[in-house]
Amino acid sequence: MAEAGIPGYAYGAREVARSPVSLEELDLLRQTVLFTGEDERYLRMAGEVLEGRLDELLDVWYGFVADHSHLVYYFSSPEGEPIQEYLERVRERFKRWVLDACRRPYDQEWLDYQQEIALRHTREKKNRTDGVEAPEEVSLRYMISFIYPITATVRPFLEEGGRPAEDVEKMHQAWFKAVVLHVTLWSQPYAREGSF
Amino acid sequence: MAEAGIPGYAYGAREVARSPVSLEELDLLRQTVLFTGEDERYLRMAGEVLEGRLDELLDVWYGFVADHSHLVYYFSSPEGEPIQEYLERVRERFKRWVLDACRRPYDQEWLDYQQEIALRHTREKKNRTDGVEAPEEVSLRYMISFIYPITATVRPFLEEGGRPAEDVEKMHQAWFKAVVLHVTLWSQPYAREGSF
Ligand code: HEM
Ligand code: HEM
Repeated sequence: MAEAGIPGYAYGAREVARSPVSLEELDLLRQTVLFTGEDERYLRMAGEVLEGRLDELLDVWYGFVADHSHLVYYFSSPEGEPIQEYLERVRERFKRWVLDACRRPYDQEWLDYQQEIALRHTREKKNRTDGVEAPEEVSLRYMISFIYPITATVRPFLEEGGRPAEDVEKMHQAWFKAVVLHVTLWSQPYAREGSF
Repeated sequence: MAEAGIPGYAYGAREVARSPVSLEELDLLRQTVLFTGEDERYLRMAGEVLEGRLDELLDVWYGFVADHSHLVYYFSSPEGEPIQEYLERVRERFKRWVLDACRRPYDQEWLDYQQEIALRHTREKKNRTDGVEAPEEVSLRYMISFIYPITATVRPFLEEGGRPAEDVEKMHQAWFKAVVLHVTLWSQPYAREGSF
């Protein structure tokens, strides 16, 4: 199940089930977030800028989580202790996700792995990949509200890439759209029957 | 039920039920989107800038909806015709929401009306306020993905307000956080039992 040496990372693996969202439905979502070919190009550029700074980016995100007990809770044992190995393993997959979000074509394989990531945040699959006993589900409210920090905190990294301000702005808009698209897809297993 | 002459607008009205979200839970959401007193101040400023341009702003949003059959669908009759009176009545409440989002204190009364707006997008209450026969629920996927257009399209209006670039940026960040916070709260009735 490992790929590129990342424990638990299963992009393209056979055991990843098919997404309940069709490519046609994905296309409507792309339209809704105004995602175009230009955004794809700027995401590729963002991937180049972020590639060498993934550990620093994850330091920011993990620092934010660590600073808030209502967030680090989801990485913690029944005794309320953060599970270091869980945090470290997820960190590697999270880094890989940044590159995947920037570089992968948003095709069927990509769609399928979005469903896998969605399920890994919910009671269907959370904790299984890493064999831990943490809370069984990240609440939908935090999945959606994370759109803000995950979008905003990337900006300084994009600015520091040495590209013209106009490119920085376009990379950031493309990233914002991509984050919204991911979280939208990840909300599927949280929705009551028929409401997604 | 009307207030300020807007049909169906029920902010603070007695028939609005209590939100299932507590003020303590709201505080955690505010922290998650990094919402501070500074954002409140910049939202007030944004309210001043947007106040005189609400119709133009709504033209942009409604134009976007009208251009996409998968969106205008939610305002349409069983025969697939957009219901003009429905669009017009919602438009007035939408304009008022922009000001409320910028100016109202995010207190219990505000929280309660967020639940009312949430329900008005779902099968619990959609169509009732205006007595129409349109689809019974706006799908969760579009509620979340609308975070992008509702955030991005406000930017030019803020820029045109004649304030310094730094204020524009801060107003826009505050608006972005506010939109994410609203949509997060509005996702509550869409979530399966225990998943919100
Ligand atoms: C924009 C929102 C979010 C993004 C982009 C994101 C991203 C990711 C990614 C890429 C992974 C690894 C996926 C894989 O296994 O390949 C992951 C896993 C995880 N995330 Fe998130 N996440 C978000 C929201 C949250 C929130 C709000 C929390 C709560 C603190 C959270 C906690 C976790 C946990 C505990 C795991 C491990 C799940 C498991 O047991 O497999 N995530 N996330
Ligand atoms: C960021 C996302 C959204 C925002 C900020 C928003 C805002 C609003 C507001 C303020 C109202 C009036 C609330 C009141 O009655 O006082 C409303 C109603 C409505 N919205 Fe949304 N909305 C969003 C997403 C959507 C989407 C994606 C659709 C689908 C096209 C939609 C369709 C409608 C409809 C049909 C109504 C009337 C509901 C009823 O029957 O009472 N909205 N919206």
